[in-house]
Amino acid sequence: MDEYDAVIIGAGIIGLSTAYHIKRKNPAARILVVDKFNAAGQGSTAKSASAFRCLFSSYTNYVLADSSVEFYKHLQENLKIDLKLQWTGYLWLLDEENWGNILPVLESLSEKGLKYKEYDKEDLAKKLCVNTYLADDEEARLMGLKDVYKGVFIPKAGIVDAACLVEFYEKEFLRLGGEIRFGVKAENLIIEPYEPLGIPDEPYFWQESRIAGVKTDKGVIKARKTILAAGAWIPQFLDALGIECFIKPKKRQIFCIPAKNEALKKLLFTKEFNSAGCLPFTILPNYQILIRPFPDEEVFWLGYADEFPRAFKLEEDPQPEKNFYQYAIYQVLVKYFPQFKDCRPTSAFAGLYGINTLDGQPIIFEEKDLIVVGGASGSGIMKADAIGRIAAALYNSEEYALLYGDRKFKVSDLSLKNRRVEQEKLII
Amino acid sequence: MDEYDAVIIGAGIIGLSTAYHIKRKNPAARILVVDKFNAAGQGSTAKSASAFRCLFSSYTNYVLADSSVEFYKHLQENLKIDLKLQWTGYLWLLDEENWGNILPVLESLSEKGLKYKEYDKEDLAKKLCVNTYLADDEEARLMGLKDVYKGVFIPKAGIVDAACLVEFYEKEFLRLGGEIRFGVKAENLIIEPYEPLGIPDEPYFWQESRIAGVKTDKGVIKARKTILAAGAWIPQFLDALGIECFIKPKKRQIFCIPAKNEALKKLLFTKEFNSAGCLPFTILPNYQILIRPFPDEEVFWLGYADEFPRAFKLEEDPQPEKNFYQYAIYQVLVKYFPQFKDCRPTSAFAGLYGINTLDGQPIIFEEKDLIVVGGASGSGIMKADAIGRIAAALYNSEEYALLYGDRKFKVSDLSLKNRRVEQEKLII
Repeated sequence: MDEYDAVIIGAGIIGLSTAYHIKRKNPAARILVVDKFNAAGQGSTAKSASAFRCLFSSYTNYVLADSSVEFYKHLQENLKIDLKLQWTGYLWLLDEENWGNILPVLESLSEKGLKYKEYDKEDLAKKLCVNTYLADDEEARLMGLKDVYKGVFIPKAGIVDAACLVEFYEKEFLRLGGEIRFGVKAENLIIEPYEPLGIPDEPYFWQESRIAGVKTDKGVIKARKTILAAGAWIPQFLDALGIECFIKPKKRQIFCIPAKNEALKKLLFTKEFNSAGCLPFTILPNYQILIRPFPDEEVFWLGYADEFPRAFKLEEDPQPEKNFYQYAIYQVLVKYFPQFKDCRPTSAFAGLYGINTLDGQPIIFEEKDLIVVGGASGSGIMKADAIGRIAAALYNSEEYALLYGDRKFKVSDLSLKNRRVEQEKLII
Repeated sequence: MDEYDAVIIGAGIIGLSTAYHIKRKNPAARILVVDKFNAAGQGSTAKSASAFRCLFSSYTNYVLADSSVEFYKHLQENLKIDLKLQWTGYLWLLDEENWGNILPVLESLSEKGLKYKEYDKEDLAKKLCVNTYLADDEEARLMGLKDVYKGVFIPKAGIVDAACLVEFYEKEFLRLGGEIRFGVKAENLIIEPYEPLGIPDEPYFWQESRIAGVKTDKGVIKARKTILAAGAWIPQFLDALGIECFIKPKKRQIFCIPAKNEALKKLLFTKEFNSAGCLPFTILPNYQILIRPFPDEEVFWLGYADEFPRAFKLEEDPQPEKNFYQYAIYQVLVKYFPQFKDCRPTSAFAGLYGINTLDGQPIIFEEKDLIVVGGASGSGIMKADAIGRIAAALYNSEEYALLYGDRKFKVSDLSLKNRRVEQEKLII
């Protein structure tokens, strides 16, 4: 049977970035990407809020995001590949306690060159017509909502179109001679002993064995290296082999609200913060509901990454929940932004995070000719280029990956055995 | 509805030890244990190899096992409760590399009072009729088997009857007024907001909420504290709430071989090592196949804790696999102990480990009135008493648990948030 140099399971943004960077470094290698969908980026990638920031306290988070974003910027500004990248910035609305926690981190990062701007609540109220004072509101109190005390604006952040990014990696990978097969569903990884003996159910523990490829609904695909880039589906494949990866699936939802009235239009096209002339990607206090501007479509995307008691659960076709908007997001949103009163989503979608429950940062490791690339925990788009480069370095058995901008990154820092990532302090 | 002070899910050894110690410390509290089986200890507890050792390099492992074993010894020797505890000792058969790794750890523990005895290979060959030299055996080479270089015998170790231990905790718990309901299957934990508003699907993230009990196939049971002691089933309950516990289920098998011929009888009733007059609990080199003597029944129990590619998988009724004995265990066993030639198991059973994939040590934490007690990773029997005492201290919001022998143990050391356990070096 035909053996590929590598078969990559998953044509999402992580799988395709990995495929492209491997192929770029190994032009002669036969690299195949398979995906259960009929086109690229149709899984969780398509369900992303597609926003980015480079502001993180952990070096790992920072360098993965910053180098990826610099690469995307290079694509759009120098190579004129339209990724619909817009520098909207991020705006955190903070209560007094948030602000007290975050200030020392901001000051320390500022010494290293971070740019940020501070807004006081009066200024925010004027610019955004945001309710900063909720203390007298009985419902707000019941919901535990806090007054807005400060705003922090980060200019090096914004939005991008995930589909455009996917298209870039897909096209370039194909142009270099990579192969993609769509509509091919991976069922399980194949284990093979190095020295097959023909005994039933082999290999046994005393036989050295390796992952030799993947069994799909369209047949077996053998490869020298099997690369699992299946996002939230990764643990399903690895549990079957007894390999722990510390990744769990969790549903995330986005609700789309059109800027249908003057007040909402004014909010969406706020000129006060950025040259994009729209509302920054905005995060509400305390519960961190997010408002992602989508100026081209004249809509807001609303989301919330709920923890307890949102299940770790794999679903083939996760659905957004009307009640989650109506009783959860909307109730909080409208207290801060009364402009949204009575607004209901015209559309909504849901995807799955592949959450690394250890530290929330990506996981890239090799075991028995299987390379696992995942755990991006909801920041896959903004880190995809760096993740692909690191996975490609691992494929080539290199100690360091060279990220965009010539930044060296130690490959094993994202492994499980020799993991070295700092705790992120900037969870605002 | 009637509210219990605590409902404990699982009447295995961990659930019953926890129930007993809580009730002992809180005589007036209404404590209920529920279990899906019709009697106590019928899940993984009944499938255990039921052996114990106190020899560990990590303080946590050591103190949990040593204090539990001292308590069991006290029960049997002072209180005359027959646990069928026998001091068979543990005998590790080591290849040269194992020995080189383990010697410094043994020497360092020896300074702290550990007793162990070293045997050279000639002596072992004489005492056990064990094949120590396999280098010329082509099949052994193919299986990666190593010559026996040394043996290490630990006297403070042995076997116990899990059913007797279960009976002790069950009886004492009932005697103190505790309640047990058998044949009650927990379906899911119940989440309730502190201030219910009557909105659909509540609670939402802006509502403070807690675990208020358990929904079973026989109805809802409410409790002030819900204690999840369901072993390998713990992650199933917690995944549904999006709580990570780092526990995964894995099947483990035991095969029973009668000492049917003279050579096997001689091996089983070896007088050379202990006053019990039987083979110690013996571990083969390299792959660590274990031989657990069962002198009362004149059988050997054989087991092997296989890692890759044994799946993390929850099964209601896990079955032993004939092929796993025949092609895996037997092939290795018979090379070292030719006495077992052509022996086939007369019976076999399988259970599930609840493996803590972080560090292999127990996990005891509280979140939102839910107390989780699990992750014993296959050493639940030998640590059950200490685990129960620590869980009871957590129930009582105490900072330290007092283990048997008046040893203080910091409860949060086994939590997830403030976990403090050392890496075990004595994985021989």
